[in-house]
Amino acid sequence: MKKTDILVIGSSAAGLVAALNGKRMNPEKEVTVITKQAKTMIPCGIPYIFGSLESSDKNILPSSTMFEANGITEMIAEVLKIDKDNRKVVLSGGEEITYEKLVIATGSQPISPKWLPGIDKKNVFSVPKDKVYIDEMKAKLQGLKRIVTIGAGFIGVEMSDELNKVGKEVTLIERLPNILGLAFDEDVAVRCQNVLSERGVKIMTGVSVKEIIGEDSVKGVLLENGERVEADAIILSLGYIPNVDLAKEAGLQISDRGCIMVDEYMRTDEPHIFAIGDCAEKRDFVTRKPSCIMLASTACAEARVAAMNLYKLSAIKTFSGTISIFATAIGDHGFGVAGLTETIAQLENFDYVTGEFEGVDRHPGCLPDAHKQFVKLIVGRESGVILGGEVAGGLSAGELTNTIGMIIENRMTVNSLLLLQIGTHPLLTASPAGYPLVKAAENAAMKMMK
Amino acid sequence: MKKTDILVIGSSAAGLVAALNGKRMNPEKEVTVITKQAKTMIPCGIPYIFGSLESSDKNILPSSTMFEANGITEMIAEVLKIDKDNRKVVLSGGEEITYEKLVIATGSQPISPKWLPGIDKKNVFSVPKDKVYIDEMKAKLQGLKRIVTIGAGFIGVEMSDELNKVGKEVTLIERLPNILGLAFDEDVAVRCQNVLSERGVKIMTGVSVKEIIGEDSVKGVLLENGERVEADAIILSLGYIPNVDLAKEAGLQISDRGCIMVDEYMRTDEPHIFAIGDCAEKRDFVTRKPSCIMLASTACAEARVAAMNLYKLSAIKTFSGTISIFATAIGDHGFGVAGLTETIAQLENFDYVTGEFEGVDRHPGCLPDAHKQFVKLIVGRESGVILGGEVAGGLSAGELTNTIGMIIENRMTVNSLLLLQIGTHPLLTASPAGYPLVKAAENAAMKMMK
Repeated sequence: MKKTDILVIGSSAAGLVAALNGKRMNPEKEVTVITKQAKTMIPCGIPYIFGSLESSDKNILPSSTMFEANGITEMIAEVLKIDKDNRKVVLSGGEEITYEKLVIATGSQPISPKWLPGIDKKNVFSVPKDKVYIDEMKAKLQGLKRIVTIGAGFIGVEMSDELNKVGKEVTLIERLPNILGLAFDEDVAVRCQNVLSERGVKIMTGVSVKEIIGEDSVKGVLLENGERVEADAIILSLGYIPNVDLAKEAGLQISDRGCIMVDEYMRTDEPHIFAIGDCAEKRDFVTRKPSCIMLASTACAEARVAAMNLYKLSAIKTFSGTISIFATAIGDHGFGVAGLTETIAQLENFDYVTGEFEGVDRHPGCLPDAHKQFVKLIVGRESGVILGGEVAGGLSAGELTNTIGMIIENRMTVNSLLLLQIGTHPLLTASPAGYPLVKAAENAAMKMMK
Repeated sequence: MKKTDILVIGSSAAGLVAALNGKRMNPEKEVTVITKQAKTMIPCGIPYIFGSLESSDKNILPSSTMFEANGITEMIAEVLKIDKDNRKVVLSGGEEITYEKLVIATGSQPISPKWLPGIDKKNVFSVPKDKVYIDEMKAKLQGLKRIVTIGAGFIGVEMSDELNKVGKEVTLIERLPNILGLAFDEDVAVRCQNVLSERGVKIMTGVSVKEIIGEDSVKGVLLENGERVEADAIILSLGYIPNVDLAKEAGLQISDRGCIMVDEYMRTDEPHIFAIGDCAEKRDFVTRKPSCIMLASTACAEARVAAMNLYKLSAIKTFSGTISIFATAIGDHGFGVAGLTETIAQLENFDYVTGEFEGVDRHPGCLPDAHKQFVKLIVGRESGVILGGEVAGGLSAGELTNTIGMIIENRMTVNSLLLLQIGTHPLLTASPAGYPLVKAAENAAMKMMK
């Protein structure tokens, strides 16, 4: 029987960061990572394998190198069972490994829509975080022209844009009234939609797919409204479900939403076992409700928290709730959201106002590469606390969205944004007189005064 | 005698924002702005008039339009005198205007190095915020090939890069060992220097100019070391001095550094007169010492504070000190700094550690437009509070620098950065496992533990 101190299952973003930080915090401990495939892909980079990147080999996490450089043992194997009472795991080859601390970072897998007839036909794909699958899929797509993507979340949108970029005829089908409709409010979602459709992706919203049609191979989809869309391949991008079989069978507590229950230190109900990333339960920073966010960035933050609390709890190193912070790029347009959207604020019955501002992300606005820049803030009416924000602009939108994340995390208010100290530069940001966070706050302040 | 309620002298960034916000906060009041020239340039856009922009007409603040739209009176005139006892100003035409509240936003002008022989020769220029001067200068430079820029602060660097872009032979001369040596620590300054010099600007550092040579017209400069650099034109960019003559003659208190003394509400020692922007005294957020920052972004923040406190003070709407936040771009490289540099931390005798991280601003790093991204944080050793940070990367560096500004403003610590929640995207940011603010904080934390 092998013996290790810290055992991490999974080597994607969460597992990688947990192993590295676990070792850094506990240099005297032996750290072992078990991973199913020798090469783990950068999860958010997967859509770009189909366009911007030559192959999946350009989208590999440098885990093995980093593990070796940091004295961490990597094993390529599948874990069959967690035996929590004896603090050991059983591998597919029958081998057993004991641990002092176990970190479960088993991630998630694509939702398979079993209710949709035809999903087993040839050339129906999903987008799993599985290099072997993705390589085969990329090879098969090479010869196929007409693609239908079902589901317009981030993966569906990014896959559609990348396949369009390499000359495919892409139709993106979404049940909701807007693409990215769960991430953004309509005013921002429509901007994404316009950009994507100008780039050549055919977008159909507010329609459901009834059936995938064809014989052996896909021929297209039949919509609920009777319409048919012809296709040589279908990409299912309907979201992901957490991989919790191992945890469930081990008797760890699973939440109603099907995630591994964890506390603010990322501990499961068994004190020596931690769970992080897509498989772990999250609580929203603002709504305090369970959150179904699955993001590598969130996973990495959780991994850091777990690593810092493995052997001794540190009261200040806890997680006060997940702030969902997303961003995406379509061409040279960037879109982002942090915290609550207005839709969620309404749904959750917050007393809120919004503050909006549209300006330009350069000054003067006639400088090359200038983009319109729209910011919307969601503000607690009584407190002035910023609950969320959305950005549509150029490629600085990613970091600007992170700034909004920071505003939410620090529970900053409209008043503090009115006084916000920022730096501006003609080629890098909006003008100081028209900085979007301040101007959107002014807009919100006006509404609060009324 | 004319009468107004709120009178603003100056319509650059500070004056513009003070007038607009003064009116917004006090819609029943009459607001008048006095400005010397009909068109006011966007101050930080001035260097770009010489390269990226066709003409200064592309770099105009939309003040007149905005004043008109908001019911603000604009007068083109020069103020000769402030009579604070009678609450009135006297204009160049002899006209007098009384006010209830006066906001002085008279800005700054280039330092004229009287100690340097030859500054009165033909084709020796400075970079004032004066459209007529800038237009004439641009016209004259058209026919001249060899340019020497003296002084490698932001204006000197940006002027050099822009003139180089349009085919001039530019030599940038700096007395300090590095360009941008007052803004950045050497490790970041050297990166700027390398980029600028790769683009074709000849850089001479650690040398002083002894004399500007030539007959009537400039022929070049003579250096302290005896060397000569030939030139058809000289650009002096040695910094700016505040315009305080009016305030001084009115008997308002002037600081040792020559700025108008103000309190946290931006009031001068005369309670009905406010001063904002380059002409107003500043106190550094971290060192608590007077600061000689002159930035449009700071000016706008001060303008907002003044506008909110004109008629009634609001205790929560004050300025707790200036955080210097700068950014610049050279080609597709972005550089920024917020708060203290290590040089200043050392000089001021802070007990500090630094945290550094170099990664890539895309993930995977082989994506198009990926840049190396270096972040350095300055951290109070005992408290872990973030005192400052520097960024060298791609064009997202501007907003990333603003994030550091937000970290400083919220007095966030290394511990909170270790848990930081961020959003990442392959085409917009560094990877979640290698997000520079978190990684630099980890680096600092390691040093603090030792």
